[in-house]
Amino acid sequence: MPNSEPNTITGTAGYVLHDVPHLSHYIPHLTTYPNPLQGNPSYSVVNQHFVDMDDSVAQQIIVHKNSPRGTHFRRAGPRQKVYFDSEDVHACIVTCGGLCPGVNTVIREIVCGLHHMYGVNEVLGIEGGYSGFYSRNTIPLTPKDVNDIHKRGGTILGTSQGEGGNDTGKIVDSIQDRGINQVYILGGDGTQRGASVIFEEIRRRGLKVSVVGIPESVDNDIPVIDKSLGFDTAVEEAQRAINAAHVEAESTENGIGVVKLMGRFSGFIAMYATLASRDVDCCLIPESPFYLEGPCGLFEFIRKRLTENGHMVIVIAEGAGQELISESLSAMNKQDSAGNKLLQDVGLWLSQKIKDHFAESKKMAITLKYIDPTYMVRAVPSIASDNVYCTLLAQSAVHGAMAGYTGFTVGVVNGRHSYIPFYRINEGEKKVVITDRMWARLLSSTNQPSFLNPKGTQLTKP
Amino acid sequence: MPNSEPNTITGTAGYVLHDVPHLSHYIPHLTTYPNPLQGNPSYSVVNQHFVDMDDSVAQQIIVHKNSPRGTHFRRAGPRQKVYFDSEDVHACIVTCGGLCPGVNTVIREIVCGLHHMYGVNEVLGIEGGYSGFYSRNTIPLTPKDVNDIHKRGGTILGTSQGEGGNDTGKIVDSIQDRGINQVYILGGDGTQRGASVIFEEIRRRGLKVSVVGIPESVDNDIPVIDKSLGFDTAVEEAQRAINAAHVEAESTENGIGVVKLMGRFSGFIAMYATLASRDVDCCLIPESPFYLEGPCGLFEFIRKRLTENGHMVIVIAEGAGQELISESLSAMNKQDSAGNKLLQDVGLWLSQKIKDHFAESKKMAITLKYIDPTYMVRAVPSIASDNVYCTLLAQSAVHGAMAGYTGFTVGVVNGRHSYIPFYRINEGEKKVVITDRMWARLLSSTNQPSFLNPKGTQLTKP
Amino acid sequence: MPNSEPNTITGTAGYVLHDVPHLSHYIPHLTTYPNPLQGNPSYSVVNQHFVDMDDSVAQQIIVHKNSPRGTHFRRAGPRQKVYFDSEDVHACIVTCGGLCPGVNTVIREIVCGLHHMYGVNEVLGIEGGYSGFYSRNTIPLTPKDVNDIHKRGGTILGTSQGEGGNDTGKIVDSIQDRGINQVYILGGDGTQRGASVIFEEIRRRGLKVSVVGIPESVDNDIPVIDKSLGFDTAVEEAQRAINAAHVEAESTENGIGVVKLMGRFSGFIAMYATLASRDVDCCLIPESPFYLEGPCGLFEFIRKRLTENGHMVIVIAEGAGQELISESLSAMNKQDSAGNKLLQDVGLWLSQKIKDHFAESKKMAITLKYIDPTYMVRAVPSIASDNVYCTLLAQSAVHGAMAGYTGFTVGVVNGRHSYIPFYRINEGEKKVVITDRMWARLLSSTNQPSFLNPKGTQLTKP
Amino acid sequence: MPNSEPNTITGTAGYVLHDVPHLSHYIPHLTTYPNPLQGNPSYSVVNQHFVDMDDSVAQQIIVHKNSPRGTHFRRAGPRQKVYFDSEDVHACIVTCGGLCPGVNTVIREIVCGLHHMYGVNEVLGIEGGYSGFYSRNTIPLTPKDVNDIHKRGGTILGTSQGEGGNDTGKIVDSIQDRGINQVYILGGDGTQRGASVIFEEIRRRGLKVSVVGIPESVDNDIPVIDKSLGFDTAVEEAQRAINAAHVEAESTENGIGVVKLMGRFSGFIAMYATLASRDVDCCLIPESPFYLEGPCGLFEFIRKRLTENGHMVIVIAEGAGQELISESLSAMNKQDSAGNKLLQDVGLWLSQKIKDHFAESKKMAITLKYIDPTYMVRAVPSIASDNVYCTLLAQSAVHGAMAGYTGFTVGVVNGRHSYIPFYRINEGEKKVVITDRMWARLLSSTNQPSFLNPKGTQLTKP
Repeated sequence: MPNSEPNTITGTAGYVLHDVPHLSHYIPHLTTYPNPLQGNPSYSVVNQHFVDMDDSVAQQIIVHKNSPRGTHFRRAGPRQKVYFDSEDVHACIVTCGGLCPGVNTVIREIVCGLHHMYGVNEVLGIEGGYSGFYSRNTIPLTPKDVNDIHKRGGTILGTSQGEGGNDTGKIVDSIQDRGINQVYILGGDGTQRGASVIFEEIRRRGLKVSVVGIPESVDNDIPVIDKSLGFDTAVEEAQRAINAAHVEAESTENGIGVVKLMGRFSGFIAMYATLASRDVDCCLIPESPFYLEGPCGLFEFIRKRLTENGHMVIVIAEGAGQELISESLSAMNKQDSAGNKLLQDVGLWLSQKIKDHFAESKKMAITLKYIDPTYMVRAVPSIASDNVYCTLLAQSAVHGAMAGYTGFTVGVVNGRHSYIPFYRINEGEKKVVITDRMWARLLSSTNQPSFLNPKGTQLTKP
Repeated sequence: MPNSEPNTITGTAGYVLHDVPHLSHYIPHLTTYPNPLQGNPSYSVVNQHFVDMDDSVAQQIIVHKNSPRGTHFRRAGPRQKVYFDSEDVHACIVTCGGLCPGVNTVIREIVCGLHHMYGVNEVLGIEGGYSGFYSRNTIPLTPKDVNDIHKRGGTILGTSQGEGGNDTGKIVDSIQDRGINQVYILGGDGTQRGASVIFEEIRRRGLKVSVVGIPESVDNDIPVIDKSLGFDTAVEEAQRAINAAHVEAESTENGIGVVKLMGRFSGFIAMYATLASRDVDCCLIPESPFYLEGPCGLFEFIRKRLTENGHMVIVIAEGAGQELISESLSAMNKQDSAGNKLLQDVGLWLSQKIKDHFAESKKMAITLKYIDPTYMVRAVPSIASDNVYCTLLAQSAVHGAMAGYTGFTVGVVNGRHSYIPFYRINEGEKKVVITDRMWARLLSSTNQPSFLNPKGTQLTKP
Repeated sequence: MPNSEPNTITGTAGYVLHDVPHLSHYIPHLTTYPNPLQGNPSYSVVNQHFVDMDDSVAQQIIVHKNSPRGTHFRRAGPRQKVYFDSEDVHACIVTCGGLCPGVNTVIREIVCGLHHMYGVNEVLGIEGGYSGFYSRNTIPLTPKDVNDIHKRGGTILGTSQGEGGNDTGKIVDSIQDRGINQVYILGGDGTQRGASVIFEEIRRRGLKVSVVGIPESVDNDIPVIDKSLGFDTAVEEAQRAINAAHVEAESTENGIGVVKLMGRFSGFIAMYATLASRDVDCCLIPESPFYLEGPCGLFEFIRKRLTENGHMVIVIAEGAGQELISESLSAMNKQDSAGNKLLQDVGLWLSQKIKDHFAESKKMAITLKYIDPTYMVRAVPSIASDNVYCTLLAQSAVHGAMAGYTGFTVGVVNGRHSYIPFYRINEGEKKVVITDRMWARLLSSTNQPSFLNPKGTQLTKP
Repeated sequence: MPNSEPNTITGTAGYVLHDVPHLSHYIPHLTTYPNPLQGNPSYSVVNQHFVDMDDSVAQQIIVHKNSPRGTHFRRAGPRQKVYFDSEDVHACIVTCGGLCPGVNTVIREIVCGLHHMYGVNEVLGIEGGYSGFYSRNTIPLTPKDVNDIHKRGGTILGTSQGEGGNDTGKIVDSIQDRGINQVYILGGDGTQRGASVIFEEIRRRGLKVSVVGIPESVDNDIPVIDKSLGFDTAVEEAQRAINAAHVEAESTENGIGVVKLMGRFSGFIAMYATLASRDVDCCLIPESPFYLEGPCGLFEFIRKRLTENGHMVIVIAEGAGQELISESLSAMNKQDSAGNKLLQDVGLWLSQKIKDHFAESKKMAITLKYIDPTYMVRAVPSIASDNVYCTLLAQSAVHGAMAGYTGFTVGVVNGRHSYIPFYRINEGEKKVVITDRMWARLLSSTNQPSFLNPKGTQLTKP
């Protein structure tokens, strides 16, 4: 049986719906049940209990009066009919990849949402990421167990770093053996790709198991969705490091503060932290290559800014300048040295380069302070807005699984909760588009060079 | 000359654009200029410098495949042509109404945006709200003056509480006398109504003056837009009070913590703070009437919750229960007492009522702690996400004024910056819709009574 | 048998030691044991394991070269010999009175200190203050149970407000019945007086039970000791309220921010918060009477300060101005009104008085914002320095009890941990001495009137 | 003229006063003036305006009843007579060495104290440390200029790192040329030694210039005094890093969090941060050598702790393990590599060593996260208790200079403000005494090995 095909529905004026799979697509004659929310007193005041079957969320909302309507996603929320008897639900939750503020809030709300809204009592935590499926141990999760976990950073389920090389067959065996029929998977792009493969295997075996992805990447690099959970918290926390760098830089002559922020492939945290702070003179991200030497290079910009202001702050995303590092390290030809491994960290590398440059040029004595707040940013508990965000996301995930949808990631699109098929989530990292206005706003706020012209030649401004 | 008429444009499939006024609508033969951003190096990397004339933002994004497209607003952003020569711009900023986190960030960015993006050097601050227009003094604002103000709460321009009774004629005289041609007005619903009247008077006089509203209401009660500036900060800060109430309540037998939060007409802060915290047992908002006595009343709910858990936290929005207070105070017939004035504060009133009830009933000794964090919530500097939000909002305001639009409020609709005509902003406060799912989620998280049935009779649950 | 007599030892050059009682004073032939710390690997590196029997802590350290040496207290710390076999220790902890940051840290460390240093496994928590002794229930406390409690505000044991009227006989019966032989009592002056009475009854019955007081009063009003636990945290947290008051005041014309801080009989929190903040224009404390009317009164000072600066911040301790309130309320002769009860809160009362005064005088329109952060200040977890302080205090308490001392409060005197006999702790509240330099420093920083001259007459300065 | 001799005064019962120099010691016939505080209304309420000439502060307060009284210092505070006419005072302030929370508070209060208490109007800021004396520029400082600086981290005067090699002659020339007669010098041990040399030169030249040191070292390594300014703030801020390390460690299997804290020669921050946090499993400081290999080494302790708990946190002071690094780097014999320079950072070095060890041993897969919060800790504004501390310290400095004392450092000894002669401050760094009870308390709280026995042999416990 081949992988599931994209499921597309079209309508008037260019309307396209990228729909998600449903258990009934590959299992015939499934029993349905009335949604237990109908008897829930909290929901008894709600006029319109349930999401209309036809509701969809528009991806494109900047439109012309006659433009086609474009892509839509299925709206998240409770359905009139559910495909699971609450007593038969055996759910599990697994958290994969790097830490991110808000993960515990999601775990809490999957457990509480299943319990309070649907009367589900059986929820298991899989420990330590995907590899936890191979293990004997699981953690039973009740509303009482998870009551306060949203006030703590990290994940109570643990996670593991390298998510590659997992054995899909063994994972699905484990799901099957334990009688699990709802699988909630939190993680970033690698994790969501893993979830997609697990879903395909489950579908191939014809199991009545909903597979639901919850996108979690502090880098905010997941496509389609507005914003990753924990992102606002991360930007908030990054301000502390930028403030410190600013104070250090201001307090010495020719002081430079360098702050490395998260963002392996995309510079969203660096960009938003820069826009929020206003104390940053230069923001370097993976999407916008830069170079060090020459009249339009970074060194010359630093020299100018120090001459004007006496101090400066540089924010660099961890994935920026990778090609420069490779060049630089291969030139050193000492790849094997223990110390040189450290230079693969762009923050340490750039700091060293700047120090060396100004030491060699002897024109200007600088004082550079380097701050890497990565783990302090990732490990904090989520702020209130992220707590609400995570809570509603978890509820949407639960409604989707109960309604029999599967093979989807839950996400917020233009502010609305949606079910997005895995193939759309896995189409590549979301990146900062450096030809868009957002990046222009950043450049305008820092007045940094655009590094767009070829090395060594002065950019002629129109 | 009558007030300006709503300006509506229609398109295919039910498309409607609620357009904003433009200076050229009532002043003929206005000169246009190329947008200075074309020469701005930061914007030189942007493929598409300018917002397409036809871009609009859809208000309705939950759609069916064949449903009509509904209302749209003009998209915010820089236009190819501007209607002001940068050297001729004399802008002013006025902040009205209660404090709100982020106001200084907006002031900062109007000044910096006008300066850095458009080369405008003349920006004045009007002191102390609308009444500052009558005063001799204004505050000249340069990028240097406002460089660090986003790190402080409050408004550097000052504000005044009662915005009623201003003399539109005198305000417009003052605008005219000072040669001001762009007016940026921050404030809530009263302020925006004032802005609308000022705009109409300016239009009547045929002045080339853009009037731009920036919606600022910590209560988040402004219609059409997604969220007021500073709202996330307020919810964040409110967590401190709820945490304290929870600790106090937990530390005594039958401990009750009561927290009053802002929200005169709408309970958004109370609702979101409750959803974010998870330590709240009951959330009372203006939109959802409640009552004290009887088997389904608040007293009985308190008694039950204390019996079960030993402690509880109540969050009440300042505008909740107003009819109960009136009843109660008129019963006391001591309206004139200095002390009784204090009971018009719903937090003090409710706390007293609860204490009296349990003291009289003698069944249960309670300990109640009341917290009113209002001014601590309003006066904090904005968090990072609000800083970015305010920055972009101010830039959108500036782009709109420069492009000759007037009589509009800038706002975010479904995540997109838009220009919204005053008549849509002034159509009444946005309120929590208690028959919507969001309120149901809250009820489900607190398990509080819905107070929907008539007093004294038990609600029959389906 | 009468109460125990003060136990005083004298030495050369005017040396006096106010010693604490010891179990051996009233129980003959007690067995001693070598201190288990001798075998503790952590302590094996310590040259001088144990406090010398003769070590004492000087209370007076500002001396002249020939001045008498004055009062001393017994130094706290582990003794070579202990009077309890670790296996026989049955300790209990009770927390009384109002909340205070750091109480959970003390509880944690009594449990962990007894366990890790002395191998004690039996520690009980008494629930809800002294009255918990009458109850069946106690909470068993192990190091695991208390591992994270120092990160939470409040007290996990609960407390109760009115500590008066407890039945000493019943409490000691309960101690005897449960076989408890070490009683750790946290609380303020009322609580320590209670502890003293319990100790006397235990001594009268000849029980081998150590009674140890740990002084806990967020007001910092406990005599002899340098500083109450949690005090620095309270002052820190109070800054938030003062900042908010300052922002609110600055943002309106003639804006006044009033902040009420804790301090029923002594104004330490108000004084230190004022000194730390520097945004306060007037600090009112119980020790320094003030008056409202007349040329040297508060109203006139407010008028002057507003005229000069346009805004001001007033900090008032909860116990300030009590005689003014009594006068004022009896004048109203409406004591019975529900609302008037609220006016016994000095913050609400003063705010109302100021508003009324300026409304009536009609010379100046003011805007007053009142903030009462009391419960937000009390309920926070302790800051790091208080955590260390509480940890060491608890260890000192444990060492003292194990060494057979009883009838004492543990406290820090001139930075050194000491055992202080109850009679010295119970000699009355510590107060701000308004004829000392510390208060002069405050007056000098606020430039407020001293309110020392008779009403209505101008103070003639020398 | 030789350096000034220690000035010692003795009294009864072994009393010794280590007195400070006074301008009158080397300048005859100095005019004195009545202290202007006599006319200051704030001080008019103080019974005892002035410090008694004979007041001294005891250094030793743990005493026996007949023990000698030991060392004393001159008590700080205002004197009846001052040696400067307020109108003639030309003061300057210089800040040297690394940043430290609270420096701006001290600057603020020297300026405000001189102005408000003594009516002094001429205060200059020297920019960028000692080398600023060579520069033309100085910063005039008025109470208005410094009004809000205590809310900011860093130093508004700037500082410079290497304080060696300054030319005392040129500095004193500069002081003389500018007519400065009070010099306030903030900085650590190197700075205080510099101050001592400057004082001797001034004395040699017979200038009427008071030289006052204010000890500032975030490491808390200054002898005699209780605690350095900013120390509590630093320990507070360090908690964030430790919390993050704990969350990261807990969230992965065999997770290790390593946090490097400040402390080149003494481990006070590491020790107090460990005691305050309670989440630390091992604290490594310069005073307590450790080793990696062998049955009692660090690697084996890590292995055991991970086996028991699954995760652990290590705190290491920057100056710990220096001899191990030297050994290790000389073994690599690649000193010249750019990367290896980084390994001189003990945090990076230790992290790499641990990773390599567990990678090579292949017995245990670990995940290590390294956090270096140094600059985030140094650069924060001071907490309230440090603000009060710094304020009073600055006032004491001002009183001392006005009273004609010179050649001293102001400091708190046993909680009392004192004037300490430079030779006592410059007698070497204060260190954690690892044979004292404080370190034993730490070992007892972490249960880490003492690393005291020779490598490879098991410590035999008594």
